[in-house]
Amino acid sequence: MGQPRYIAVDIGASKTRIALCDGSRILDKVVFSTPRTGDSRTIAEAIVSKTIEKWREELGSIEAVGVASIGPLDLERGRVVKTPNLPFEEIELLEPLSRMLGVKVYVVNDAVAGAWGEKHFGAGRHVRNLLYVTLSTGVGGGVVVDNHLLLGKQGNAHEIGHIVVDYDSDLRCGCGGYGHWEAYAGGGNLPRVALWLLEKNPGLYRGSVLAERLRSGIQVTSVDVFSLYRAGDPLAADVVGHYIRATAAGLASAINVYDPELVIIGGGVFLNNADILLKPVKRRVLKEIVTRPPIIQPTSLGDDVGLYGALAIAVEPPPELLEAQGRSFHQG
Amino acid sequence: MGQPRYIAVDIGASKTRIALCDGSRILDKVVFSTPRTGDSRTIAEAIVSKTIEKWREELGSIEAVGVASIGPLDLERGRVVKTPNLPFEEIELLEPLSRMLGVKVYVVNDAVAGAWGEKHFGAGRHVRNLLYVTLSTGVGGGVVVDNHLLLGKQGNAHEIGHIVVDYDSDLRCGCGGYGHWEAYAGGGNLPRVALWLLEKNPGLYRGSVLAERLRSGIQVTSVDVFSLYRAGDPLAADVVGHYIRATAAGLASAINVYDPELVIIGGGVFLNNADILLKPVKRRVLKEIVTRPPIIQPTSLGDDVGLYGALAIAVEPPPELLEAQGRSFHQG
Repeated sequence: MGQPRYIAVDIGASKTRIALCDGSRILDKVVFSTPRTGDSRTIAEAIVSKTIEKWREELGSIEAVGVASIGPLDLERGRVVKTPNLPFEEIELLEPLSRMLGVKVYVVNDAVAGAWGEKHFGAGRHVRNLLYVTLSTGVGGGVVVDNHLLLGKQGNAHEIGHIVVDYDSDLRCGCGGYGHWEAYAGGGNLPRVALWLLEKNPGLYRGSVLAERLRSGIQVTSVDVFSLYRAGDPLAADVVGHYIRATAAGLASAINVYDPELVIIGGGVFLNNADILLKPVKRRVLKEIVTRPPIIQPTSLGDDVGLYGALAIAVEPPPELLEAQGRSFHQG
Repeated sequence: MGQPRYIAVDIGASKTRIALCDGSRILDKVVFSTPRTGDSRTIAEAIVSKTIEKWREELGSIEAVGVASIGPLDLERGRVVKTPNLPFEEIELLEPLSRMLGVKVYVVNDAVAGAWGEKHFGAGRHVRNLLYVTLSTGVGGGVVVDNHLLLGKQGNAHEIGHIVVDYDSDLRCGCGGYGHWEAYAGGGNLPRVALWLLEKNPGLYRGSVLAERLRSGIQVTSVDVFSLYRAGDPLAADVVGHYIRATAAGLASAINVYDPELVIIGGGVFLNNADILLKPVKRRVLKEIVTRPPIIQPTSLGDDVGLYGALAIAVEPPPELLEAQGRSFHQG
């Protein structure tokens, strides 16, 4: 019997990360492309086979597995249902992982895990109230209030991306609603925002390379939008302007409703463009909040924030998660 | 020694209500105008003298006092600080009440108390996640997530009225921000919304009595706006239209971030106009939410929702409130 070990898993739309950990540190790590073919168990099977392949000798010491996953989740069953970001109707996680590995498994939304990871291993160690926001392909959040990780009735008490930031907007969100924060600031939606602006003001963007590409049907990504912004493109500038104003509104709303002492921002779209985004977003947020202003800063855990979140979930599962998923092992 | 008794207090901007209660019911009640002159202790002294006058024989049986108060609160000290609705810099509650009555006192924001009251004595008895919204002079909310009453770092984890519902708005909120839900839907702000619309479109409201009154400098209230709406006034119709759309956006945002099973709406402005407001607000909300739709209904506790909330706080103070205020009696 060695020291107790934990497996932390971070399932993203493009990459899955698995780490062998002790109670507070990542000891070893493997990263692979998240499977996009197969069935509802393919991802769990890939996680198990990588784990066995890498850490066969440590298997007997594993105490628990924490999984931070893209959502939406069915919390009780520990599975992902109808995620827009992977071609599976369902992704079974809790049941196959606990059965195959023979240990307790806890599955939470990746942004919820991020909040718990920041609370245990990041900048949030000394605060009782924190908000973790991920500004990536989508917009998500995880919240700790009074040291209590919010889960909500389906583990989805974190849908801050669907805060309505313009009640009269005709910009549609992926969820079907209108004027949501994520519609303006989800990295995956930025080309759509550009098209929406272009259609509103066809004459306004004559010199714009971004407008030209959109008109020619050339595919653009959020990376293109930000690099064209840096090159002075006027349409990209307006897209980024809406991004900043919508993000400040969404963030201010989230701060007003959760009253955090600390706001930590992660996610590739934001972290890669923090030089453009952080200052104006913070300046606007401070004008819109009625609570004592929180500290607002980027994550210090980098790409590993999801793994640290999964580790925190495995080491210290919050009471409601134990209640929802804690029987998994015995039923397995 | 009789049965254990509780004193419930609901301090509003115009009325203060005090009730003698057993563990679940209001036994007797007194309502008086909230003092508007005096010093920081005048309100506490009025509460004590009414209590002694009415229920002298029961004083020995009183277990605890729960106070539901207008905000904003300083939770640790149990006092109101710089409320915009009463002419006192501070209103001391916890310290003078516990010293004078010689029992434990708990003070929370009235909307937070409303949520706890609905959870214990109202429609929320059988749910783990509920949102109580008050649509009155202002817009406030109280939230129970996973059976846990959210307090936040200053007892203000309920500032849902300051959700930004239009990130590009030039309509100013009482807090200094722009485009907040309360700016459109606080009863006290409706005349300002009417003026704002009138200034934007001076030619649009020629037949409007509301426009005429505003132009003549005649004072109007939210009651006038709704009665003119019922009379077919076009400016009042636009004010109510913005009220409905902003309220649907704010409510949808609150549902998306808190994931409640049940939403209970109270507050005079809404309850008095539920025939106009409830249906269109619900219809719009359902289009904007990404969680499993909650039940949305008006409170069944009527004017006593604050008293029931104060009673619930006195009978079962949530752990964080005990931590913040539980030493009051021994220090007194």
